[in-house]
Amino acid sequence: MLSSQRCRRVLLLLALCHCLSIACSLQCAEDDEDCREAFMHPNIEDHSIRRRSIPGEVQSEYWLDKGKRFVAYKDASASRPQRGKAKNIIFFLGDGMSLATLAATRVYLGGEEQELSFESFPDVGLMKTYAIDRLVTDSASAATALLCGVKANYGTVGVSGRVQRADCEASKDPAHHVDSIAKWALDSGRQVGLVTTTRVTHASPAGLYAHVADRDWENDKKVKTDCGKNSGIADIALQLMEGDVGRRFKVILGGGKSQFLDKDYSEDGKRRDERNLIKEFQQLDSENVFVETRDELMAVEADKTKRLLGLFNEGHMKYNLKALDSKKNQQPTLTEMTHKAIEVLSQGEGGYFLFIEAGRIDMAHHNNKAKLALDETAQLSEAVALARTLTSVDDTLIVVASDHSHTMSISGYAQRKNDIFGFGAFGEDQLPYLTLSYANGPSFGEFYNTKAHVRYDPTNQNEDSDLDFDLQFPSTVPLESETHSAEDVAVYASGPWSDLFSGVYEQSTLPYLMAFAGCFGPGKQACSS
Amino acid sequence: MLSSQRCRRVLLLLALCHCLSIACSLQCAEDDEDCREAFMHPNIEDHSIRRRSIPGEVQSEYWLDKGKRFVAYKDASASRPQRGKAKNIIFFLGDGMSLATLAATRVYLGGEEQELSFESFPDVGLMKTYAIDRLVTDSASAATALLCGVKANYGTVGVSGRVQRADCEASKDPAHHVDSIAKWALDSGRQVGLVTTTRVTHASPAGLYAHVADRDWENDKKVKTDCGKNSGIADIALQLMEGDVGRRFKVILGGGKSQFLDKDYSEDGKRRDERNLIKEFQQLDSENVFVETRDELMAVEADKTKRLLGLFNEGHMKYNLKALDSKKNQQPTLTEMTHKAIEVLSQGEGGYFLFIEAGRIDMAHHNNKAKLALDETAQLSEAVALARTLTSVDDTLIVVASDHSHTMSISGYAQRKNDIFGFGAFGEDQLPYLTLSYANGPSFGEFYNTKAHVRYDPTNQNEDSDLDFDLQFPSTVPLESETHSAEDVAVYASGPWSDLFSGVYEQSTLPYLMAFAGCFGPGKQACSS
Repeated sequence: MLSSQRCRRVLLLLALCHCLSIACSLQCAEDDEDCREAFMHPNIEDHSIRRRSIPGEVQSEYWLDKGKRFVAYKDASASRPQRGKAKNIIFFLGDGMSLATLAATRVYLGGEEQELSFESFPDVGLMKTYAIDRLVTDSASAATALLCGVKANYGTVGVSGRVQRADCEASKDPAHHVDSIAKWALDSGRQVGLVTTTRVTHASPAGLYAHVADRDWENDKKVKTDCGKNSGIADIALQLMEGDVGRRFKVILGGGKSQFLDKDYSEDGKRRDERNLIKEFQQLDSENVFVETRDELMAVEADKTKRLLGLFNEGHMKYNLKALDSKKNQQPTLTEMTHKAIEVLSQGEGGYFLFIEAGRIDMAHHNNKAKLALDETAQLSEAVALARTLTSVDDTLIVVASDHSHTMSISGYAQRKNDIFGFGAFGEDQLPYLTLSYANGPSFGEFYNTKAHVRYDPTNQNEDSDLDFDLQFPSTVPLESETHSAEDVAVYASGPWSDLFSGVYEQSTLPYLMAFAGCFGPGKQACSS
Repeated sequence: MLSSQRCRRVLLLLALCHCLSIACSLQCAEDDEDCREAFMHPNIEDHSIRRRSIPGEVQSEYWLDKGKRFVAYKDASASRPQRGKAKNIIFFLGDGMSLATLAATRVYLGGEEQELSFESFPDVGLMKTYAIDRLVTDSASAATALLCGVKANYGTVGVSGRVQRADCEASKDPAHHVDSIAKWALDSGRQVGLVTTTRVTHASPAGLYAHVADRDWENDKKVKTDCGKNSGIADIALQLMEGDVGRRFKVILGGGKSQFLDKDYSEDGKRRDERNLIKEFQQLDSENVFVETRDELMAVEADKTKRLLGLFNEGHMKYNLKALDSKKNQQPTLTEMTHKAIEVLSQGEGGYFLFIEAGRIDMAHHNNKAKLALDETAQLSEAVALARTLTSVDDTLIVVASDHSHTMSISGYAQRKNDIFGFGAFGEDQLPYLTLSYANGPSFGEFYNTKAHVRYDPTNQNEDSDLDFDLQFPSTVPLESETHSAEDVAVYASGPWSDLFSGVYEQSTLPYLMAFAGCFGPGKQACSS
């Protein structure tokens, strides 16, 4: 059904062109508002897609009830805001988790009306993510902001803006090193843990314990390549195991085993200093536990563990969907790692600071592989739900945030509960377009014919979306790796002082807010006890 | 500078290809993490762009200070939350104002570190925008949610989900009509005003006073075309002037004069019922004031005005940049309309509800014209700043929100303070790409050669970005009109009960939150006095 004769004519003609497979170019005159607007909110029924809306939603009362419940919930929490001291702080990071990623994940989980676990948290904030030298940040400079409270140059970790990327000399100068919330927490008597699905030496977790001018200096070989053999710069893996902060971590779980081993110890070993940092860790103390499979992790006895190091892959941990799909899967899920980390850290009386990263949302986006990105986001939601269940809102602050956005868009106007990996509608070239797409990335050649016509028909590419995890989505510009995007990312907070996390702030403000609630760190503190 | 020999080689080769203008395709093996990651966060210095970062930002203390100030601000507002009754409520709507639009507007205004006026408000929330029948909403169903507290079908205004778009019979049934916050406010004794840069009969403002199955039924001719001559359905303009709600509005300012006039009265007149609704308005009362220029608006004496109707263009009001550029500009700015509306509404003692829309952000995006979209957003920021200055946080709640997102992305990784309408970097096809782009839209043909190579060199298209307001930005799929996007939009609140607006909620919850603070409407209320 259409709203005016004119538009009906235009759209009938377009449909005719589509049936006849001819290219029709129908454009409105610049000043013809009615014509232009008919295209702005088109009303073409798509009979191929059945209606899957929720019956209750057609009733006004459904929405009134939802609204009333939210107002009552907020009124109650405003009357009795969560106060006291955040003895424990769990900081979840969704790497590259844009708002579009979250909205698309809801549909992936069943429909637009779904919510991720942390979307029920009482408070949200928005963070400005730019780096000192760039419009759009990366995970290294973002980690420096999120974890050390200081914005930095793109590609640098745990150093101030005085250090340019890959500047070996500046990297060494302690005057440029900035302390992280992990150090503040340790100094306050808390235990500290690190969980990630990436290498434990990757940019985001490195923000907790490393000070380097280049995020890529994860092992000594890379440092030597860039700074020479005797630079005196400790690589990131070494800073994790021997640095003042990293060596005090009670829990370290993730991927990246190859960064800890010389090639003499493993064919995948990246190190060239003849060291085996894992063995050294084990030899330090008989109660230091190293695990590398899910079964081993599950068997860890928290009360008999002084420190726990789990490295479950040579490189990053596998994407959840791929791990599940592999035979004899021995990779723990993010939720399982979260569970064990909380169990081990809860042994002490002094509380803890636990950093947990769903780090591969970002990498999936970089490859235009939206299905993997959404699934990794769903994994994060599950892990947060468990963490909230295992802890009390009275003494444990949980914060969920992202470090930067990605260029994935969710184009209109598919029907409700349509396959999020499916089609939106038809373009003017009479080819369907997918709901999800990226501003740039490696998928370009899959969707554009560089010789004859512009776009390929994407119907075939994505017809087996249920099976193909590696499905790519179209991009506007050919790039080997899709870029991050510059818009704000969200923060979700639950527990003591969660209301302080509402508002718009610099990404570097986040650790001061967390430390305020926990009564530690260099800024103002909520309490003195 | 690069972080490893391998990457250096790869990037040198790419640079060579670029210089020689040959196409090189360098792809990493799927399992080569190091290779893939070198592309994920590339480090190519762009010497053509000078560094324009802020000197203070390289100091850690700069960020520590910023963080401390925000924590202190939030701690103070948490200790003394804004309470009491919101006598006045001003609801600003940025139509299609996505988070990417806001971040890009900051750069347009001077740099990434800038903030829009409402970004300093103490509280923010996020809203889920899906419509009952679609993944991505439009301004009509979004207005029904934002203003009536009920989600609706795409394209419908002021009716429940039982009404399908363009269903004439269902449209008439009062049982399907849903009341708006404007009606709740009027019934509580408040004055009500409406300000928009679109036609005052357009989808968003129509949500305040109209009940129609199709947003396009702005005049009787359109109703007749779709529903026949004697449908008994009042068009939107008629509902504004004669409906139970619209006829009680004290202030109506915007565009859309042609919707009020039969063609007998004006060559632009859209009506076919021989009526002149403007003249009828004037004849109703000698203190009813009609204006159609900026000078006339400025001359309005608030205390001598019973009702104020200002229609400043036949269709939508002109984009601000275009109005400024025209000779003898007689169009008031959004800020000027805001000023006069507050002045007139402040005459009474009972308080007011004022809806103010920057409605053309959306249309600029639909045309892939990012510069116009960002400028309209900047106009909104200015109007909000004035409104906050003219009113007290003790008795006036100001809420700024958006109805849906758009598909504009801000790709990495330009230097800080680079022209937001300029280039990011180079694609693999050795052509530069623009920082801003869209998932779809009418610009496609401007940037893609459908015969030979895929992309055109965009250098020429956008070289005069300072002058060309109509500049278009590239899109992935050719569409006559760019689509909306599905991710959440933000809410910014200041004044009584602003802390209740934090959290994630359905778009339809917003009016209940506003009415709670104002102590009126069908839901729970903050006070009884």
